[in-house]
Amino acid sequence: MPEKIYVYDTTLRDGSQGEGISLSVEDKLKIAARLDRLGVDYIEGGWPWANPKDMEFFLRAREIIWRQAKLAAFGRTRKPGGKAEEDANLLAIRRAGVKVATIFGKAWDLHVTAALETTLEENLAMIADSIAFLVEAGLEVIFDAEHFFDGFKANPDYALATLKAAAAAGASWVVLCDTNGGCLPGDVAAAVARVRQEIQVPLGIHTHNDGDLAVANTLAAVTAGCRQVQGTINGLGERCGNANLCSVLPNLELKMGYQCLPAGQLSFLTEVSRYVSEIANVVPAGNQPFVGYSAFAHKGGIHVSAVLKASHTYEHIRPQLVGNERRILMSDQAGASNLRCKVEEMGLELSPEKERAVMNGIKEMERQGYQFEGADASLELFLRKTTGEYRQPFEVEYVKTLVEKRPGQEAIAEAIVKLKVGDQVVHTAAEGNGPVNAMDNALRKALEEVFPAIGRMRLTDYKVRVLDEKDATSAKVRVLIESRDGSSSWNTVGVSTNIIEASWEALLDSMEYALLKQSRELNKKAAAT
Amino acid sequence: MPEKIYVYDTTLRDGSQGEGISLSVEDKLKIAARLDRLGVDYIEGGWPWANPKDMEFFLRAREIIWRQAKLAAFGRTRKPGGKAEEDANLLAIRRAGVKVATIFGKAWDLHVTAALETTLEENLAMIADSIAFLVEAGLEVIFDAEHFFDGFKANPDYALATLKAAAAAGASWVVLCDTNGGCLPGDVAAAVARVRQEIQVPLGIHTHNDGDLAVANTLAAVTAGCRQVQGTINGLGERCGNANLCSVLPNLELKMGYQCLPAGQLSFLTEVSRYVSEIANVVPAGNQPFVGYSAFAHKGGIHVSAVLKASHTYEHIRPQLVGNERRILMSDQAGASNLRCKVEEMGLELSPEKERAVMNGIKEMERQGYQFEGADASLELFLRKTTGEYRQPFEVEYVKTLVEKRPGQEAIAEAIVKLKVGDQVVHTAAEGNGPVNAMDNALRKALEEVFPAIGRMRLTDYKVRVLDEKDATSAKVRVLIESRDGSSSWNTVGVSTNIIEASWEALLDSMEYALLKQSRELNKKAAAT
Repeated sequence: MPEKIYVYDTTLRDGSQGEGISLSVEDKLKIAARLDRLGVDYIEGGWPWANPKDMEFFLRAREIIWRQAKLAAFGRTRKPGGKAEEDANLLAIRRAGVKVATIFGKAWDLHVTAALETTLEENLAMIADSIAFLVEAGLEVIFDAEHFFDGFKANPDYALATLKAAAAAGASWVVLCDTNGGCLPGDVAAAVARVRQEIQVPLGIHTHNDGDLAVANTLAAVTAGCRQVQGTINGLGERCGNANLCSVLPNLELKMGYQCLPAGQLSFLTEVSRYVSEIANVVPAGNQPFVGYSAFAHKGGIHVSAVLKASHTYEHIRPQLVGNERRILMSDQAGASNLRCKVEEMGLELSPEKERAVMNGIKEMERQGYQFEGADASLELFLRKTTGEYRQPFEVEYVKTLVEKRPGQEAIAEAIVKLKVGDQVVHTAAEGNGPVNAMDNALRKALEEVFPAIGRMRLTDYKVRVLDEKDATSAKVRVLIESRDGSSSWNTVGVSTNIIEASWEALLDSMEYALLKQSRELNKKAAAT
Repeated sequence: MPEKIYVYDTTLRDGSQGEGISLSVEDKLKIAARLDRLGVDYIEGGWPWANPKDMEFFLRAREIIWRQAKLAAFGRTRKPGGKAEEDANLLAIRRAGVKVATIFGKAWDLHVTAALETTLEENLAMIADSIAFLVEAGLEVIFDAEHFFDGFKANPDYALATLKAAAAAGASWVVLCDTNGGCLPGDVAAAVARVRQEIQVPLGIHTHNDGDLAVANTLAAVTAGCRQVQGTINGLGERCGNANLCSVLPNLELKMGYQCLPAGQLSFLTEVSRYVSEIANVVPAGNQPFVGYSAFAHKGGIHVSAVLKASHTYEHIRPQLVGNERRILMSDQAGASNLRCKVEEMGLELSPEKERAVMNGIKEMERQGYQFEGADASLELFLRKTTGEYRQPFEVEYVKTLVEKRPGQEAIAEAIVKLKVGDQVVHTAAEGNGPVNAMDNALRKALEEVFPAIGRMRLTDYKVRVLDEKDATSAKVRVLIESRDGSSSWNTVGVSTNIIEASWEALLDSMEYALLKQSRELNKKAAAT
């Protein structure tokens, strides 16, 4: 049996301190429910005294039946010179109706004197009183020793004394925090080893990523004896973020032989990562380890042929273990084996001559500035068109855009499209925030009636890259568009010296692909019945 | 004297394998020059055989005088059964005209048999022959032992034999690679220690971030004896990226007491990080350790008051050491001193009230997405306009653009402008490569007759950044334009959801600034005579 490591998620509290992150009560309830299904042990929901929204979260969370996770309310030790039973912040935790209280207190002498402006003795009393008060109320109490590692370096005896005070007062866990995020793994390991000699209570680790070492520090602490890991989904958090649970958990389970989540649950990690990004409205980092969109994407031709021969030659784990998937990218560095893979994915068969023709076509497009690695859908349309496997769902006669700007007034943008769907001529116009948006609106308006699938898709990302900036306003631009419907997303590309033309190309591809995708799904359904 | 660690940058080669990264030869030359000024020891420029663009880079790079860095050309060992002196890939390295060759070869027996499909003995001969061939040509040869750590785990004797073959053939460095990026720091440290017992040649480390441990693995390898670190700026690279030099270097210098860059150069790290993001057109990660925009950002409350009392209470290093800065969120402090500098430069004097009004105006513009850091000319125009120090040289009545696209034909773009210069009404039109180029041409045509200065300036750079990509085609865009005349260059900015409007704003500013500049020069001349 692998040894259990307890997982403490603080996405909703420490994670929500990240710049640009703002979660509503509704958002928090959704994320908490998803984390519970994933199988984490503790969910820190917020600081009920400091934030009225957090108190509302706890009150509404009471009505939910939690499968596995225990909700924890956060707070600090009582004020210097005050009484625990009169401390509004501690009373709020009791009112929150949770089973677990997580209390942070100072472990660094400098902070006690410089930030709290009290005596070292009073700080020990604050820790002891606050924990005892919550334990008496029947709560499981976790003590977060803020700045423990910096404090241990400055004054080890005092730092250890704060932990002993917490343990003696009845804390169930003592958590060692690298609050400033600047520790090195060797220092963390040495400090944890020393603490284990002094304290019987089980230990946790809480790190920040200011030195780019939050994950390494967490793993070092576990090796040295910590049995609880604190962190956030996607490493959200103030400054450079907290330890990223999406990296900590697979390392612990797949590489170090511990058990963190219930068996099989790790394979939902990618889904949870993307869900949290979606709710928090953060663009997911494509290169995020384990769960990122690019984490198992192969570009170089050599890599691709080797991966196809034996997957572990270029993959450190099987992507399925964390719910991610392998992707083969097309690019000017890619060889024929990437193309073959793509062609197979599409269910096409190519003769060697056709394959060569297609390869040359792709290389020529790339020379012109196209980039297919970020534009799967345009690549598929290009392949189907060059191999004659494609029937155009509609024909464009023209598109025109018009922008008018007068000083002091907002610019007016409109687009006119004329197309043929079968025998029917559609001629329509629309306004927009700008000419590209106007074309999007006009094209959508023209197609929606005949093709309801267009109504279900929406554009979710628009990128512009000027390719040869030195040519200034006559430079080529590449436009990348991401589109999405209920079930999936796809990417298209357009290139031109005219940004309107490049955008139009990418827009057209995006809608044509939506229709291709729909007809494929209908065919699948028909085949199944 | 701190011990020297050699810095090997592979942003231009391994970094450019990252998904969505595509660097032109021009881009590569710019980045290489900036890395050289930073003071890295080696710059890996590309693989001249596999990529014609890379060969062009090396040929053009010959004309540059490098301060500190040695350029390295990349390649693989000769083909199984072939001869080094006939190997196109090795010959290309010699043709590239560099002083350093970096050759990768297989160190994992599985790769030799499964991917290369040759014998273990032949692989050793391939390593030895290839290195000897390049050494004979007078090159410093670096051997990248691909998959060394996985190979060492699977078959330590064979993995070591590949290193010994490289050393015996004359390699100056042997670099241990965690190609799949899945190693743990403890394993890396143990393997490096073993290698040091067997090999006399100095060792390097090359890691990837698939386990979120690339930085930690690099630091562990240095502690165990490696004296060269390979990595990329911002951790660019395939899948989850390479070891991030922007994290590796400050950890080594500021926390571990090594010397990597020439004294004082670390303070340019943030600038270099942002420069590379800009050139590669990647949105910088705000939470990036050390150099990110949020890395030293403190939210209101406890942290802020503590940071102001004693900065190391909540900062692991002083941000200035890496050229970054502290940001107190929701505060007016930042910027006031910058503004004062600018105002002095322009020879303006502002009363405290006017200064506050201008500051608020700038903050509001920045909130809307303007960025004046890269747009001095627009800032000066804005300041002169808000302080009443500006006389408009012409008045715009309107600008209109029209784009028409029919399938199979090139898009037609034209612009119409109507303006008043004094009492004279100018109404004209022009075509262009795209709508922005058409506006540029029309505006130039309208102004040139009255203002000959417009004929002497030209636009030299045009950049577009989508500000909130999730809003897709209705997102805001920021346009930056660089202009130049015989004597100097200046930058202007425009922001709108309508790319035509944003471009128009930046264009107008650019031409107005040219006229302002000219009248200033005329005044100077008049004062001098």
